Amino acid sequence: MVKRLMFEKPLGMRDTLPFFYNQKSKARQQLSNAILSFGYSFMDTPIMEYHETVGKVSATLDQQLFKLLDQQGHTLVLRPDMTAPIARVAASQLKDAEFPLRLAYEGPVFRAQQTEGGKPAQFEQVGTELIGDHSSYGDAEVIALLVESLKQTGLDDFVITVGHIGYVKAFFTDLLGDDEDTIEYLLNYLYRKNYVGYREAVKELSVPNDKKDALLQLLALKGGEEIFESSRSLARNQACMQAVNELKQLYRLLEQYEVEKYIHFDLNLISHMDYYTGILFEGYAPNLGALLCNGGRYDTLLPSFQLSASATGFAIHLERLVEALNEQESDDGRIGVIVDDDSYGKGLKEAKHYREAGQAVLLQHVDQIPDLQAFKAELSETIDLTKGGGERDE
Amino acid sequence: MVKRLMFEKPLGMRDTLPFFYNQKSKARQQLSNAILSFGYSFMDTPIMEYHETVGKVSATLDQQLFKLLDQQGHTLVLRPDMTAPIARVAASQLKDAEFPLRLAYEGPVFRAQQTEGGKPAQFEQVGTELIGDHSSYGDAEVIALLVESLKQTGLDDFVITVGHIGYVKAFFTDLLGDDEDTIEYLLNYLYRKNYVGYREAVKELSVPNDKKDALLQLLALKGGEEIFESSRSLARNQACMQAVNELKQLYRLLEQYEVEKYIHFDLNLISHMDYYTGILFEGYAPNLGALLCNGGRYDTLLPSFQLSASATGFAIHLERLVEALNEQESDDGRIGVIVDDDSYGKGLKEAKHYREAGQAVLLQHVDQIPDLQAFKAELSETIDLTKGGGERDE
Repeated sequence: MVKRLMFEKPLGMRDTLPFFYNQKSKARQQLSNAILSFGYSFMDTPIMEYHETVGKVSATLDQQLFKLLDQQGHTLVLRPDMTAPIARVAASQLKDAEFPLRLAYEGPVFRAQQTEGGKPAQFEQVGTELIGDHSSYGDAEVIALLVESLKQTGLDDFVITVGHIGYVKAFFTDLLGDDEDTIEYLLNYLYRKNYVGYREAVKELSVPNDKKDALLQLLALKGGEEIFESSRSLARNQACMQAVNELKQLYRLLEQYEVEKYIHFDLNLISHMDYYTGILFEGYAPNLGALLCNGGRYDTLLPSFQLSASATGFAIHLERLVEALNEQESDDGRIGVIVDDDSYGKGLKEAKHYREAGQAVLLQHVDQIPDLQAFKAELSETIDLTKGGGERDE
Repeated sequence: MVKRLMFEKPLGMRDTLPFFYNQKSKARQQLSNAILSFGYSFMDTPIMEYHETVGKVSATLDQQLFKLLDQQGHTLVLRPDMTAPIARVAASQLKDAEFPLRLAYEGPVFRAQQTEGGKPAQFEQVGTELIGDHSSYGDAEVIALLVESLKQTGLDDFVITVGHIGYVKAFFTDLLGDDEDTIEYLLNYLYRKNYVGYREAVKELSVPNDKKDALLQLLALKGGEEIFESSRSLARNQACMQAVNELKQLYRLLEQYEVEKYIHFDLNLISHMDYYTGILFEGYAPNLGALLCNGGRYDTLLPSFQLSASATGFAIHLERLVEALNEQESDDGRIGVIVDDDSYGKGLKEAKHYREAGQAVLLQHVDQIPDLQAFKAELSETIDLTKGGGERDE
């Protein structure tokens, strides 16, 4: 038994070796700099929370939560996201701070995996929460900051797809009334981005053909600002009109931020079945087969912590961002100083000199190196101070 | 039930609000810079590991482990330290890298707490592992790097207490032979630093008085290099002599690093009942009522992963370091730009200008601020571009 698991990790758990670690570190720092420049304050919450406090109100499905029992018999969860824990803090320790609050975070979150070879069970999110600003200015700031943060890392080829859950919900209610089962059934296809399945399902509905046509035309509401007009004419009800006007106002503000070239609208977008309450968005990089980042407005989470406040935010999946950046492994610039007993003092002085100049210097006694040539080959430069050493190899 | 736990966190779990977060972040960065300058490479491992892989070989007591079951019925643990996971990686993915390996880490570790109001159940460690160097040069590097790292953060008033488990074990075996129960019984008092209890226990032993005297004299072996002589004369056996010679050699090397003023010797030091195998050390800051950092040489951990290699390293308790630094809360330097509909474009330009100059700027529409004066009071400077706004308050 021991032998079998000796080097194994739990399902979905991964090690982060130095090269990938350094890339993550660099990208995290660049994202943080952008977020800090917008006046956000970073904070952190524990890895573990009570299920009834944070697990139940999180956007993550219950079967994806890692659960454990504490010694008092409470169910604990490993935090599946940072939004619910930050809402807990905003509604308790920070409730007397001046609103709107601008908070940010970076750290690991957890999703239990059912099968081998699947998605990571632990990954890192860098994100923001703007709490207490329910205006389009707030929505625009969050999306503009998301774009600026991604650009700071050197990523340029990406798209932020923006939708509005208010439009989708009003559109379906208008056409299908209170037939909630059918609405949920159709929304599920959109949620899973299964447009073929959606078409089939619409065709089989027992509703008049003009309604079927409208339900199918919804799929075409993707593109630039030109879709505002068609979105308005397809759904002639008050709530849909208001959603389109919010999107239009948002777009005008994003133009002022000069980030509109990254924005794409999609009125079929459903990121989550019942979490977001207004604008919502997802970000993709073309070379990445998965979601890079997402976010939106959620106005019911804070009230579940007895705080009457609206909020909006984004979360970037850091490991996927690093994959999208796709940087190549390069020389890490370390200098090696190889010494023996006699040259140890001289080696220490050399090492100190280069370290003070900001370089990474590894000082190593030659007697502890099994393979000197191979050891030198891993360094960008070596200073060999041993008897018979060549002094300097580059 | 929901109401009771609404804002609660599990036993020993804490939130990290922005001020403390920023201090941790700054100290972590300073420690990292020092560690990188010595040629170490940072890496990370998952928060969860198999109990039989990492839990069983960790230095942490089994009852302090957070355990949970996965869907396959394996027992998982939240990592109690980073040394065992890094040993797992060194012995698997990195086993073909060139040794000695210099690895470093920073991240949360977990210790289950039994009672309310006790120690934190999650805390952050920043540390290093030097794997495959079994020389005093290796021991000296680790301790010198620990001192340099702490100094980088601005901490100057601290002591690193160095001991040698080989001395203690040989000393007891020499005096008490194979009476392992008595040895364990006495070592436990030293481990818990209960010197009064140790004295009482020694007095009640049924051994000759000269042995009792020697056992009591052990307590006096604390101080500077002057204790090498008394340590040698107290324990006239080969293994003790060798341990003292290793400490002496270590001290000579630490003098060359010019860090000897931070070093204190203590031949009663037992950091852990059966983990370290040679030199071991603990660091204290006088204004802190708890261990700041510790480490030592452990030569049996890597063999438990089928890798024949010796290792040494240190771990710094980051939150305690921040407490020891005891910095005062200060102005966070954020500029606020307050706008209305008409001045939004102008505000964006101002914000962009200051952000590009490296400042943190918060742009806020006035309609979303419940209390404008209080909001301004939280910023170090505000530029009010609203109609009737005073333009600039400092």
